[in-house]
Amino acid sequence: MLIIGERINTSRPAIKKAVQERDKAFILNETQKQIEAGASMVDVNCGTSLDKELLDMLWLINTIQEKSAISLCIDSPDAAVLKEALKIHKGRAIINSITAEKSRYEKILPLCKDHDCLLIALTLDEKGMPETAQDRFELATIIMEICQRYGIPKDSIYFDPLVRPISAEQKQAKEFLGAIKLIKELGLKTIAGLSNISFGLPKRQLLNKAFLPMALAFGLDACIIDPLEDPLMATLLASSAILDQDEYCRGYLNAYREGKL
Amino acid sequence: MLIIGERINTSRPAIKKAVQERDKAFILNETQKQIEAGASMVDVNCGTSLDKELLDMLWLINTIQEKSAISLCIDSPDAAVLKEALKIHKGRAIINSITAEKSRYEKILPLCKDHDCLLIALTLDEKGMPETAQDRFELATIIMEICQRYGIPKDSIYFDPLVRPISAEQKQAKEFLGAIKLIKELGLKTIAGLSNISFGLPKRQLLNKAFLPMALAFGLDACIIDPLEDPLMATLLASSAILDQDEYCRGYLNAYREGKL
Repeated sequence: MLIIGERINTSRPAIKKAVQERDKAFILNETQKQIEAGASMVDVNCGTSLDKELLDMLWLINTIQEKSAISLCIDSPDAAVLKEALKIHKGRAIINSITAEKSRYEKILPLCKDHDCLLIALTLDEKGMPETAQDRFELATIIMEICQRYGIPKDSIYFDPLVRPISAEQKQAKEFLGAIKLIKELGLKTIAGLSNISFGLPKRQLLNKAFLPMALAFGLDACIIDPLEDPLMATLLASSAILDQDEYCRGYLNAYREGKL
Repeated sequence: MLIIGERINTSRPAIKKAVQERDKAFILNETQKQIEAGASMVDVNCGTSLDKELLDMLWLINTIQEKSAISLCIDSPDAAVLKEALKIHKGRAIINSITAEKSRYEKILPLCKDHDCLLIALTLDEKGMPETAQDRFELATIIMEICQRYGIPKDSIYFDPLVRPISAEQKQAKEFLGAIKLIKELGLKTIAGLSNISFGLPKRQLLNKAFLPMALAFGLDACIIDPLEDPLMATLLASSAILDQDEYCRGYLNAYREGKL
């Protein structure tokens, strides 16, 4: 299970302030807390910085990788930002993200190939968000074929079938789960940002921690979550034990002994 | 979603004591608490009473139904106990349970037919517990055919594919989930006692509340749970909202307003 911590995003006021003030200690602490909670990679997003996005992104990558060996999930739709970011990033980054939109992938996929990156591919195209599981599956196959043309192997790609809030579109959660199943049956990897499920509803944690086990049971390989959100990591460990992804429940039992459950 | 509260079972010391002492107030309170927490039926089991099982069962049914209109899940493998219990039970009971074992079903199914009961059918036979999802599915079809011979419609039957503890048999949870899916595809109803998943492990609630959303996402229709176990009912409401079984999230939002989440 690849767990990407989502906290370093300038849409969060505390992160925005830290980035603006070049507060290294704050960013390093946010990184370290996520790693300790179980994140294997950390997402960095400064999309709200607008014309300063590139400078802020480079500062974030340098700041984090100066002190930590962790690889980053470089979260920008802008190929120019990704290009410079990948020049300074150490280790194997994951690019977040491409879609089936030509204007987006034709600039990003060559970078991905040159730097041997991992890649998150959202199942959407110029027509917008897909409605059904089948629509999402078909977009994933289209994107897989595009990536193959650019020399990017399918094992490097995580397909994101897009979680939509049940407060707005209640039937979409089942379509999302169905898409995970279809995409997995094709031997592809899946990822999702799960917390979108609960947008607009009270007690979001309760919905998030019910949705995570469902997505895992349908075969989700990776997730973008806030690993500090209580008790999401404990729910993830419990789910892994149930789904036979944690031999002899060792991870679960170790976390218990360490007081992390 | 049919929710059967499992607390009134003489394997629990407090219940055993209350039954032995004919403590009506205690049993009525256990019943009421489960109903208020969301149980639509209440299981009554006095299997540990041994030769007093029949007397204890009749006392429990009379005690509960004297004060409450709730229908009961009469939990005994003994046809003689079920026969007398059904004579005094008011409303439509659910019998818990038959199996594909002839010695068990040949005495119980005629009672079920005579009293127009609902029925829980465990997917096991003389050879013991099934291993795979397919084994469970085949047992369900065998039991469905047997029930048809006795004039019991498939809509009256809840099939239980048997949850086994991951502490002992870790691959079994996925087989159970696969069985739910297969049995549902045949248009049959499913039920499970979910808490068995966590037997023998610490922090059982964490495992139980991760397993419940998985089972619901695979199509589970009914569950036997302790509705007072925090936060199992909240997890169930969240799961129902996600799976589009709670229109406009009304149940979830009402529970939130009532402070029940």
